[in-house]
Amino acid sequence: MKPYVLGIDIGGTNTVFGIVDARGVVIASNSIKTAKHPKFEDYLDELHKEAMRLIEANDAVDKIYGIGIGAPNTNYYTGMIEECANLIWETPIALSKMVSEKFGIPCAVTNDANAAAIGEMTYGAARGMKDFIMITLGTGVGSGIVINGQVVYGHDGFAGELGHIIVKRNNGRICGCGRTGCLETYCSATGVARTAREFLEIRTEPSSLRNLPIEDITSKDVYDAAMSGDKLAKEVFDYTGKILGEAMADMTVFSSPEAFIIFGGLAKAGELILKPIREAMDKNMLSVFKGKPKVLLSELKEADAAVLGASALGWEAK
Amino acid sequence: MKPYVLGIDIGGTNTVFGIVDARGVVIASNSIKTAKHPKFEDYLDELHKEAMRLIEANDAVDKIYGIGIGAPNTNYYTGMIEECANLIWETPIALSKMVSEKFGIPCAVTNDANAAAIGEMTYGAARGMKDFIMITLGTGVGSGIVINGQVVYGHDGFAGELGHIIVKRNNGRICGCGRTGCLETYCSATGVARTAREFLEIRTEPSSLRNLPIEDITSKDVYDAAMSGDKLAKEVFDYTGKILGEAMADMTVFSSPEAFIIFGGLAKAGELILKPIREAMDKNMLSVFKGKPKVLLSELKEADAAVLGASALGWEAK
Repeated sequence: MKPYVLGIDIGGTNTVFGIVDARGVVIASNSIKTAKHPKFEDYLDELHKEAMRLIEANDAVDKIYGIGIGAPNTNYYTGMIEECANLIWETPIALSKMVSEKFGIPCAVTNDANAAAIGEMTYGAARGMKDFIMITLGTGVGSGIVINGQVVYGHDGFAGELGHIIVKRNNGRICGCGRTGCLETYCSATGVARTAREFLEIRTEPSSLRNLPIEDITSKDVYDAAMSGDKLAKEVFDYTGKILGEAMADMTVFSSPEAFIIFGGLAKAGELILKPIREAMDKNMLSVFKGKPKVLLSELKEADAAVLGASALGWEAK
Repeated sequence: MKPYVLGIDIGGTNTVFGIVDARGVVIASNSIKTAKHPKFEDYLDELHKEAMRLIEANDAVDKIYGIGIGAPNTNYYTGMIEECANLIWETPIALSKMVSEKFGIPCAVTNDANAAAIGEMTYGAARGMKDFIMITLGTGVGSGIVINGQVVYGHDGFAGELGHIIVKRNNGRICGCGRTGCLETYCSATGVARTAREFLEIRTEPSSLRNLPIEDITSKDVYDAAMSGDKLAKEVFDYTGKILGEAMADMTVFSSPEAFIIFGGLAKAGELILKPIREAMDKNMLSVFKGKPKVLLSELKEADAAVLGASALGWEAK
């Protein structure tokens, strides 16, 4: 059996790719700009050229078992990118087919959050778990759900969009999806910044965040302020964690996971966000599940996570 | 291979059991009172005696492949009834072990809603489906979730309690589970009666329901009034279906089912409840899932459903 897989993470800005072995060691990696080529064919040419350069430099020609790709809005069943606001190319794109033909290597694709879940199950905090839910807290809120050891793709290949559970039926925040009140409008990095702005406008307490231009506040600013002891900034994380914990209690009645794995930029806030999450879960949990689901931080290194997650899928490619 | 299974449905009032063949034909069935014996051992003696009488009368001795049991709060993994407000016996009860020892036949157990889902998948509206969600609308709201052709039991065996998704965070109705705002406080038969009482108190329109003692109103009364053209009674179903449809749109982002199968007493309301469910789903659905999940009524005959569902599990017993 060939000893390596190629993992490719296609993000809106960068495409990161790496050669990974069966134990999850990233042998070598590199990246290209995703949005440089208006046509997908030209992007694929460059990706192929650069990936082959990396493969040759690491003596891995004919040693790649499969290619795994994580990309937004990608369908595991069809191998297509169906439509995607974050990518500049014309859709649909027959991603899996085109990549495997270009490289002459089998390829499997899924969305980025599912790729992260597969990576976590294969190499990270979910090793040995058969039932868990990965929650990615970045620009949006993504999720990868694993039940009976399998990623949940659903009937159409798009299951696991937990960022779009509606947590406020009335007067909820406008979401990029066109609806209102979605979880991700509150619990993403963007949501944290929105909450901070709301708090600063509505409330009167002093806060170091008032020294910043209100429209420019980021979740990182809120984090820094909270770590310096700013009370209002801490309450922004309390509010965020409470909404997420309430939603996670609802997710628990669905699939009763062994653990939730928290991943992505906001996960760096650590106990600032984990504590209110755990409190809200406990307060809102149906009694039969009380105290059962663990809340863990991802164990994948941030820099490697995307490539590792995508690469793990490469072992399934056929 | 032995040609029959024995299906047993243990309800709070009656225990129904039947001999079922591989095509889902109920060869013969009978029932006993569940609550007659304060000790589970005595109940089991009677159940065994009556079931054996049925088996002998139908020339099925040594022809029973397995026993499947559906009962409230039952754990598929452990075969135990862990605790149950609706049964009078001391818990936990090692249900699967005790029944299989008594009969000398392998036995598998699960909760009643999961049994219904297995029955629907094997013999009913979900034949050929790998991803669907069964919603049972009775005294409470139960659910059985099927993903990749498997019932979702979760890490602890208790997954699929969708009746306890919280649909109103503030000022929600008190639920039997000790929390407030659960789906089943609104969308069960009991919930429909509660809604009717609320509407009658708060609103001023005439309604034939005002002729009944308000505390005695049942979902059947509301159904009868709605079918006779009573506007307020119809709006009770609109309200019920709207809340359920909103919740079903949220369930869709989790597992993207091919269909929701509606089962139980309230399902008899047909279009009275299906229409507002479909409208609310459509209005609240994330665009990628819009128009995809079907909403179907159970195809299992009400009288046979419980036994059929339980019996289907008998083929898995080992």
